[in-house]
Amino acid sequence: MDSSPYQNLIQRSKEIALYSSTSALLGWDQETGIPKKGLNYRAEQCAFLGGKAHRLFTDSQVGNWISSCENEGNFIDSEELANLREWRWSHDRAVKLSSEFIEEAERVRSHSMFAWAESRKKNDFKIFSPHLEKIIKINQRKAESYGYSDHPYDALIEGYERGSRTEMIRELFDRLKPTLREIGEAAARKSANISSQILKGDYPINAQEEFNQEIAESFGFDFNAGRIDAAVHPFCSGIAPGDTRLTTRYDTNDFSSSLYGVLHEVGHGLYEQGLPVEKFATPSGNAVSLGIHESQSRLWENHVGRAPSFWKSWYSRAAHFFPSLQKVSEEEIISSTLRSEPSFIRVEADEATYDLHIILRFEIEKDLISGDLKVAELPECWNAKFMEFFGLRVENDADGCLQDIHWSMGALGYFPTYTIGNLGAAQLYSKAIEDDPEISNQLNGGEYSKLLDWLRINIHSKGSVLLPDDLIKGVTGESLSESYHLEHLQSRYL
Amino acid sequence: MDSSPYQNLIQRSKEIALYSSTSALLGWDQETGIPKKGLNYRAEQCAFLGGKAHRLFTDSQVGNWISSCENEGNFIDSEELANLREWRWSHDRAVKLSSEFIEEAERVRSHSMFAWAESRKKNDFKIFSPHLEKIIKINQRKAESYGYSDHPYDALIEGYERGSRTEMIRELFDRLKPTLREIGEAAARKSANISSQILKGDYPINAQEEFNQEIAESFGFDFNAGRIDAAVHPFCSGIAPGDTRLTTRYDTNDFSSSLYGVLHEVGHGLYEQGLPVEKFATPSGNAVSLGIHESQSRLWENHVGRAPSFWKSWYSRAAHFFPSLQKVSEEEIISSTLRSEPSFIRVEADEATYDLHIILRFEIEKDLISGDLKVAELPECWNAKFMEFFGLRVENDADGCLQDIHWSMGALGYFPTYTIGNLGAAQLYSKAIEDDPEISNQLNGGEYSKLLDWLRINIHSKGSVLLPDDLIKGVTGESLSESYHLEHLQSRYL
Repeated sequence: MDSSPYQNLIQRSKEIALYSSTSALLGWDQETGIPKKGLNYRAEQCAFLGGKAHRLFTDSQVGNWISSCENEGNFIDSEELANLREWRWSHDRAVKLSSEFIEEAERVRSHSMFAWAESRKKNDFKIFSPHLEKIIKINQRKAESYGYSDHPYDALIEGYERGSRTEMIRELFDRLKPTLREIGEAAARKSANISSQILKGDYPINAQEEFNQEIAESFGFDFNAGRIDAAVHPFCSGIAPGDTRLTTRYDTNDFSSSLYGVLHEVGHGLYEQGLPVEKFATPSGNAVSLGIHESQSRLWENHVGRAPSFWKSWYSRAAHFFPSLQKVSEEEIISSTLRSEPSFIRVEADEATYDLHIILRFEIEKDLISGDLKVAELPECWNAKFMEFFGLRVENDADGCLQDIHWSMGALGYFPTYTIGNLGAAQLYSKAIEDDPEISNQLNGGEYSKLLDWLRINIHSKGSVLLPDDLIKGVTGESLSESYHLEHLQSRYL
Repeated sequence: MDSSPYQNLIQRSKEIALYSSTSALLGWDQETGIPKKGLNYRAEQCAFLGGKAHRLFTDSQVGNWISSCENEGNFIDSEELANLREWRWSHDRAVKLSSEFIEEAERVRSHSMFAWAESRKKNDFKIFSPHLEKIIKINQRKAESYGYSDHPYDALIEGYERGSRTEMIRELFDRLKPTLREIGEAAARKSANISSQILKGDYPINAQEEFNQEIAESFGFDFNAGRIDAAVHPFCSGIAPGDTRLTTRYDTNDFSSSLYGVLHEVGHGLYEQGLPVEKFATPSGNAVSLGIHESQSRLWENHVGRAPSFWKSWYSRAAHFFPSLQKVSEEEIISSTLRSEPSFIRVEADEATYDLHIILRFEIEKDLISGDLKVAELPECWNAKFMEFFGLRVENDADGCLQDIHWSMGALGYFPTYTIGNLGAAQLYSKAIEDDPEISNQLNGGEYSKLLDWLRINIHSKGSVLLPDDLIKGVTGESLSESYHLEHLQSRYL
């Protein structure tokens, strides 16, 4: 249909995307390259562009255009309906904050990210804590402005995972916790005879780069539309059409840390590269949620990359790139990459213990938002919970409450999406191999195109046309469920 | 003095700089990292931000604020006067073009740069020529809009070097040409016994990076406020306060190509890092012209970096980084880096032949703008002139008329500033060592702080307070003159 207000909304979305894609590049550059003395001005650039985008979207015209479309009532196309639904939801939310508040939040975020990196490097919580105080206050103000019926954390998590509520997550996590602890303990027992030193060797960075790139390409990542750089924190940024950037970090004593990081980010990258480019800048062309995003990364990292078939395909290439592996058998690589034990760092945690790291963060951050936990008490609280969850004593904050970038970015309410992603990965993967038996055959032979096709058709190409749970339900026939993930862990680790 | 219109102008300049500094990062990223499929959208981002900045500056309010300040007439501070002078000049010029034209020009530029790189890589002029047609048309339209009294090229060169005129440049170049040819021929005779193979060896990129960085730091380049990356085309971009980025390219068979490229870009970088940061975004905090910029790069590259004293200081470090140099004596390095012969590539040309490359380009580009030369005739015209100037037959366009990035960037009128920079470098360097005899002593000992101090005080800190020729006159007591440069070349190469 031809609607002038609708076309205006499309046009406005495209203009906003010119700002937000530019902000995304500024953010990528801040993590990969900016010189230290450039950070202050970068904070101003981010605040400026963030404020511009917010003003364009909260403009009263936008509200009028949305209302006009809603009143016309003759939208039947699912894509148009989805765009309207998302514009309405985001507009109603955005107008609750002033553009000046957004600018200030952007400025605080930029400075805070840098302070956090310093704080972590120097293992000194005091450097970060005043910034974290500001971040918490900003998030509390956001929650109050957005509004919530039960817990202020509801208002935040909704921004990362539409439809999620604190109580829902709490119940899920309470159900998962005992089973995950059982699985973790059993996995640790099973791993007791696998030495943590098997993969240790000499892995030059350029060989790691080449090996990672070869696998990323075989998964289907398009290097004409993306790249991989080194950065302190692994992430994926879908900057613009044809421009998806991943980062990783290298350990020259163990190639597997960077490799699995890359497999994970490639999963995100394939989702970004698979979004319908002609709908870029409108909701139907955007990734639908962080949980669905994470389902893609965890699927490629764990269901594909840690399956024994993966190493059957890649063992000889790995030994070609890394002479250190020539003394390690294929079976030893497989068992090493499935080795499980309680550990300090979430991004390096094995599958069997990973979700406990998430649950710990959820319990802490919802209390930071409610005010039940003060920033000054964070290290002590973290360390006590860590002992309770993992039986490990945190010796320094850099390996404890300072390890993650998220809070410094102002992102509270983000962590639960990792576990939501784990559930989604297992549920989707199970459905994929059921739908197309050829997928398993291909994976056994080190080919990935049929799995990627399935994900392209069922997930990537959908953008935000369906809300996360409707998407999962539409594809798998049921709502997001923990059973697939637990079955996967049990079959692999018990 | 406290002036509301003046403060408004400062505020507006700062807002425009938020756009232009962001555009600078987009431009840097386009040359260093963007994936191929991201280029189309990048062109849209550049057009969008360029249009926004142009609209903000050509807004009728800006003209009113400038007029108010001019009418008040009580500005006595040289910095305020300079800001007003520059705002007036740039505003009058900017309003002659529409923002839509600027957007289109930005879009054409982005696409053209990519087509040029492809064209050069494939040595196929036809890929670039339709883009160059558009670039020439855009520049002709610019010249017509800006207006000129004598030659349309006047209107363009003025954008790079205030106060320059086609006729002035033509007369200068006509005077220089015979002397430069004499010097070039003498230098080639003097170099006849120096083998071009002396420095050839094995130079790993990481060793080159470390050596370049050590020298850049010793010159005073601040790596906390800048960085050096690899790119196909060496350049310097002063992106924002605390963020100056250089690029270079590496030849693993000859370290000197990247080294002298870096010394050159470091000269630009020191100027950018030496601009008064508190005045950033206003004319008094900006570099004054490309000619003055080039005077800084050529000074560090040639007057410092090709002086025998340079290798007396750096020979042993070079031999430490590059085992290939252990068979080469200090004297052999010195004579190799002063070796002269007619060659195809401007950026790798020796000092004695460099300006002839510039004169050739000037003669061609002014005829492209006037329409006396058609794009289709460019390769033939280039090759004929090359034979006339250098006695060399150009065998492929990649080493001929496709070698430079400038025209693809839409920059016509830029090339003469390289020779203006050579004159300035010699004149300023001569004055510096006359003013402070300690400078020479330091250079002999491999120290550079006093030379940098002199440049900081006399050039960098001045921003655009004085117009280029007034700046040179103020520092050296006379207008820009070719005599210092010719004397320098004669004493070094005859």
